[in-house]
Amino acid sequence: MGEGMLSAIHGPADVHDLPADQLPELCADIRRTLVAYGHVHGGHIGSNLGMVEATVALHRVFDSPRDRIVFDVSHQSYVHKMLTGRAAAYLDPEHHDVTGFTNPDESEHDQFVLGHTGTSISLACGLAKTRDMRGGHENVIAVIGDGSLSSAIAFEGLNNAAEQGGNLIIVFNDNEMSIAEDHGGMYGPLARLRASGGTTEPNIFHAFGLDYRYVEDGNDVLALVRAFEAVRGIDHPVVVHIHTRKGLGLPVAADDDTAAASAASDIAAGGAIAATDATHTADATHAANDDGDETVIAEDLAITAGRCEANHWQNPDSAAGKPLGARKHYGQLAMAALERRFATEPGLVVISPATPGSNGITRAFRERAGRNYVDTGITEEHAVAFASGIARAGGRPVLATSATFFQRTFDQLQQELALNHTPATLLDFGGGLSGADNTHSGAFDIAMFGNIPSLTCLAPTSVHAFLDMLAWSTSAANDGPVVIRVPGDAILGAERAGEIADAADPAVTSDTVSTQDCPWNRYRIARAGSQVAILALGNEYPLGLRVVAALAQSDGDHAGIDATLVDPQQFSAIDAGTLRALAEDHRIVVTLEDGQLEGGWGEKITAWYANAGWAAGNRAADHRASGHAGGTLPHPVHVLNFGGAKEFTDRIPLADLNERYGLTVEQVTKAIRSLL
Amino acid sequence: MGEGMLSAIHGPADVHDLPADQLPELCADIRRTLVAYGHVHGGHIGSNLGMVEATVALHRVFDSPRDRIVFDVSHQSYVHKMLTGRAAAYLDPEHHDVTGFTNPDESEHDQFVLGHTGTSISLACGLAKTRDMRGGHENVIAVIGDGSLSSAIAFEGLNNAAEQGGNLIIVFNDNEMSIAEDHGGMYGPLARLRASGGTTEPNIFHAFGLDYRYVEDGNDVLALVRAFEAVRGIDHPVVVHIHTRKGLGLPVAADDDTAAASAASDIAAGGAIAATDATHTADATHAANDDGDETVIAEDLAITAGRCEANHWQNPDSAAGKPLGARKHYGQLAMAALERRFATEPGLVVISPATPGSNGITRAFRERAGRNYVDTGITEEHAVAFASGIARAGGRPVLATSATFFQRTFDQLQQELALNHTPATLLDFGGGLSGADNTHSGAFDIAMFGNIPSLTCLAPTSVHAFLDMLAWSTSAANDGPVVIRVPGDAILGAERAGEIADAADPAVTSDTVSTQDCPWNRYRIARAGSQVAILALGNEYPLGLRVVAALAQSDGDHAGIDATLVDPQQFSAIDAGTLRALAEDHRIVVTLEDGQLEGGWGEKITAWYANAGWAAGNRAADHRASGHAGGTLPHPVHVLNFGGAKEFTDRIPLADLNERYGLTVEQVTKAIRSLL
Repeated sequence: MGEGMLSAIHGPADVHDLPADQLPELCADIRRTLVAYGHVHGGHIGSNLGMVEATVALHRVFDSPRDRIVFDVSHQSYVHKMLTGRAAAYLDPEHHDVTGFTNPDESEHDQFVLGHTGTSISLACGLAKTRDMRGGHENVIAVIGDGSLSSAIAFEGLNNAAEQGGNLIIVFNDNEMSIAEDHGGMYGPLARLRASGGTTEPNIFHAFGLDYRYVEDGNDVLALVRAFEAVRGIDHPVVVHIHTRKGLGLPVAADDDTAAASAASDIAAGGAIAATDATHTADATHAANDDGDETVIAEDLAITAGRCEANHWQNPDSAAGKPLGARKHYGQLAMAALERRFATEPGLVVISPATPGSNGITRAFRERAGRNYVDTGITEEHAVAFASGIARAGGRPVLATSATFFQRTFDQLQQELALNHTPATLLDFGGGLSGADNTHSGAFDIAMFGNIPSLTCLAPTSVHAFLDMLAWSTSAANDGPVVIRVPGDAILGAERAGEIADAADPAVTSDTVSTQDCPWNRYRIARAGSQVAILALGNEYPLGLRVVAALAQSDGDHAGIDATLVDPQQFSAIDAGTLRALAEDHRIVVTLEDGQLEGGWGEKITAWYANAGWAAGNRAADHRASGHAGGTLPHPVHVLNFGGAKEFTDRIPLADLNERYGLTVEQVTKAIRSLL
Repeated sequence: MGEGMLSAIHGPADVHDLPADQLPELCADIRRTLVAYGHVHGGHIGSNLGMVEATVALHRVFDSPRDRIVFDVSHQSYVHKMLTGRAAAYLDPEHHDVTGFTNPDESEHDQFVLGHTGTSISLACGLAKTRDMRGGHENVIAVIGDGSLSSAIAFEGLNNAAEQGGNLIIVFNDNEMSIAEDHGGMYGPLARLRASGGTTEPNIFHAFGLDYRYVEDGNDVLALVRAFEAVRGIDHPVVVHIHTRKGLGLPVAADDDTAAASAASDIAAGGAIAATDATHTADATHAANDDGDETVIAEDLAITAGRCEANHWQNPDSAAGKPLGARKHYGQLAMAALERRFATEPGLVVISPATPGSNGITRAFRERAGRNYVDTGITEEHAVAFASGIARAGGRPVLATSATFFQRTFDQLQQELALNHTPATLLDFGGGLSGADNTHSGAFDIAMFGNIPSLTCLAPTSVHAFLDMLAWSTSAANDGPVVIRVPGDAILGAERAGEIADAADPAVTSDTVSTQDCPWNRYRIARAGSQVAILALGNEYPLGLRVVAALAQSDGDHAGIDATLVDPQQFSAIDAGTLRALAEDHRIVVTLEDGQLEGGWGEKITAWYANAGWAAGNRAADHRASGHAGGTLPHPVHVLNFGGAKEFTDRIPLADLNERYGLTVEQVTKAIRSLL
């Protein structure tokens, strides 16, 4: 490697300078590089392969960074990176690193850090607006795929682009997967639009008032150059619809999808990571990847497989032969539990706003589930309102997606779901601290869910508790919305190691809290001690176990401490009875959570103890506790909170984050001993 | 009144039983009732007038509540309420009450509580899904207006409806305001679709794969009955596009909009509340209402005028001649400050995702602002990403909307704005506790904004501070996203009463916090005392002033207390230096905030004091403070938090909420004295 044309490309100027007749050769070299890279390193290859010619043509015709190109969800930006000074990362990945997302800190050619779908058109509108206000003449280009187009904000962007006017070029990368796998009524008309060579109506872009061009062969670099030259400097928004072939260049991809899938599967089987799409649409690897077996499969790749960039260096499942990670493990168990009820409970419906496989919702399950399963496409907002509607009519919906993507439907969570108090169940996958990139962090879910009124938030610490909670939330006994934070790898590891044995066994010591709302409103006393109580929420429960064990040891200077361990089981309601009981014979209460401290759970405990300590009646403090606070505490309780900082972190290994935040046995133990 | 046909309608069955030829007379009676009601009580009359015939036809043809009708954003549901047992509330409003929103607690004919736009199609999909899973045959109908159609989730709903299949009837109420005022490229094609009698392409509904019918005269009840009968029991989703005339029945509304505007203005001038739309689109009253003068105008009505239902009994501005409320007062001042800079700062752009008038962005301002002002329609998600794009390219966007509507774009706030650290300014109107209905509460904004990393959250306590903050956030000195919580009526009242005098005067005592990020990272010591420190955030600053004054008084049993008053100025960063300094000579720290306590600001203060009290180094606690925590506190500090409970409240007067939450001088003072 390194001897092809690509190695001579150090920036867009080199693409400009090439004789036009050498562009196909450059594309071929890029394609070879991508395939080789994919074989060894994995990554998001399939859709990038489809975009080789378009990206070369973009950099041939436009003048980045003066002209600004926004890649939706960082979609298909590998080739862009290759052409903007970062080819070495693909040609010689042993010695050069590159992130999976566009990032202005990495290159002046990258406009934004993006990992959530559908925002490119709106962002580009903003770039264009400033240009127009300043009288500039640079081009602004948004590149968006067909799967991304189904997300809410993308439609808002289309609708506003035409209204705004001025130069704005929307490159719509349509890789022909629409009918097969995209979800939504627009994909049929879109397929007919392609079949007509871009001439037939209804044309959704025309319906949004946009000018429109069509390029049938989106892998013909010279045709693309002509198409982009025709719109360069255009004085109004235009959609350039390019019909590309995903996976082009994989051994047999050009012929049919099945063959491409086999090829992708080959790559996967080689221990590398096969391609998947920045959209959730089926790509060439889809068929090969989704049976939930233990091999490396495309949907494993990304933190939320299928629509964000794969970062192979951070994914613990990226090596073949490893056991399933927690996401798939618990997801599959949940689906199996639900599936047994489908025949007799027609109202039980699993909803996935895309990327089901990454959550253990296997292809085989989906096929068996039939109408009990709905993939809504990349449409979290619709999915939540849809779930509320199902529940209002008496059904029991179960909506599964990533913590980071639930953020996209915060308003529906609050309004359509919580305010309307409809009994939908949300399975929150990937919540908590992790080594995820900065666009897919799960560290914010407790602060988001836990502060929505009327939403029950459960944090199981064992498979038994998880399945019990799911059974309850989907039963007639539950009349309101419930989010269940699916256990993470910390719990799975502890279960596999035998550290957690039947944690679901109820050992409740307090009966001052009503159970009418939820069987888990009472904290579970996993181990009764004195002096120090460790309240270890969800994924930090194994840490709580280890801290208690460490405290029990004498360390020479100090005698062992007989600490109490509490499994709160949920983070939506304060169990005032248990907190008050703990105050009787505990001086120190420690909260552990694997999420952002600010706005999170532990601060509620701290505030409860602060405000419960006086009798005069802080009514809000009374009000917010699920039991009543009444009366002063016997003596002050010192509360320590451990959890994440309010910050974005980018691919920092979890062990390093835990060290940073004090979430280690040593640091928690040391802090406690220093107070005694 | 009460002698017309309407008084004989006690439920949909009575509509079914009428001879068909009496339906027009019923409609006329309803229209008369609505106009009379509007003259006396105000409310959301214009769009309801347009929907009289359609609603009668819906209840004539369909069988509610078996057939389920979902009114988007509770849009235009007055007539629905009249026909479902609640006519007395309109015929005899002195003796019967009715809410402005649909609400299942009010009637079995209301499917959901809705006050945010665009969710009806997705909700209806859910209702239909459960029906289909159970083998039911009832009809499911979503009623949505043309302005609502521009919001993100509405498009997701359209796209998913066709995919889902089965009976689903989307009644699209198009009241011909599209070209004039609706924002977005789809409205031009939509106008041409109307002009063609529903026959031309592009038809946006066809583009989403939906069946489609058109009714040119959407105020012809018999034509509507025929149209609805034709789709009753249909086996697939269909859009029934009805072309209605908003304000029909107002004195001269039928002739032209200008006349209707005058008529509406007459109503307004009569001391009542004129109509506005559940969408933000101009309606017949629009022209009359938006100059920011002191008369009663349509955009004043609703909590967030223009698109939610007006609840006249709760709006302090609903009587003519009253001074401007805080929203408009501070909004107008902000716009005036920005406008002075437009000529020399082309990058300065004000963005309003609809309902500008309610935030003091007057029609006259908008006209003068020209390209420096953008109304994006009801598209909060686009608006935030758009703002981030403007900022990335070097502009300085200012985005103004309601606290409750910022929830709709939470993910863009976090990802496109905060993570990308683009210098956009958000003006957060209507934040805090209020007597709002349960769909428009501002009580959740501190917990939402304050827990987003990298977002500076400012809470000015005076007009000077507000304008200084706006000047800074839109200047080159600021390089990141800033939300400014626009002061509320508590502060405006205190300013008018002379209680707050130049609160912007910096009297900072701590210099341990770097000011490089934001000049307001340091808390302002408004009054230096000892023993007790009152930290009064934003709108609670006047309460803080009064509590300090009350504490200074001897009450017979107790001597006066020389308390400290702190104006935190912001809720995004802990000022550890000031908190530590307070600990030197204060035993009690009290936080006051007008928002939900859980996840809010005061709990961060409590947690800081809890965790700063030990030296062993809780790293996250250190990390989250904008200064370093280092070292133990000289002695324990008791923190009390006052703020709202985690609950939805519905039109409870603010004074009652303050009493409930302990946010009164008496309760705060009593709590403090009980601890001393």
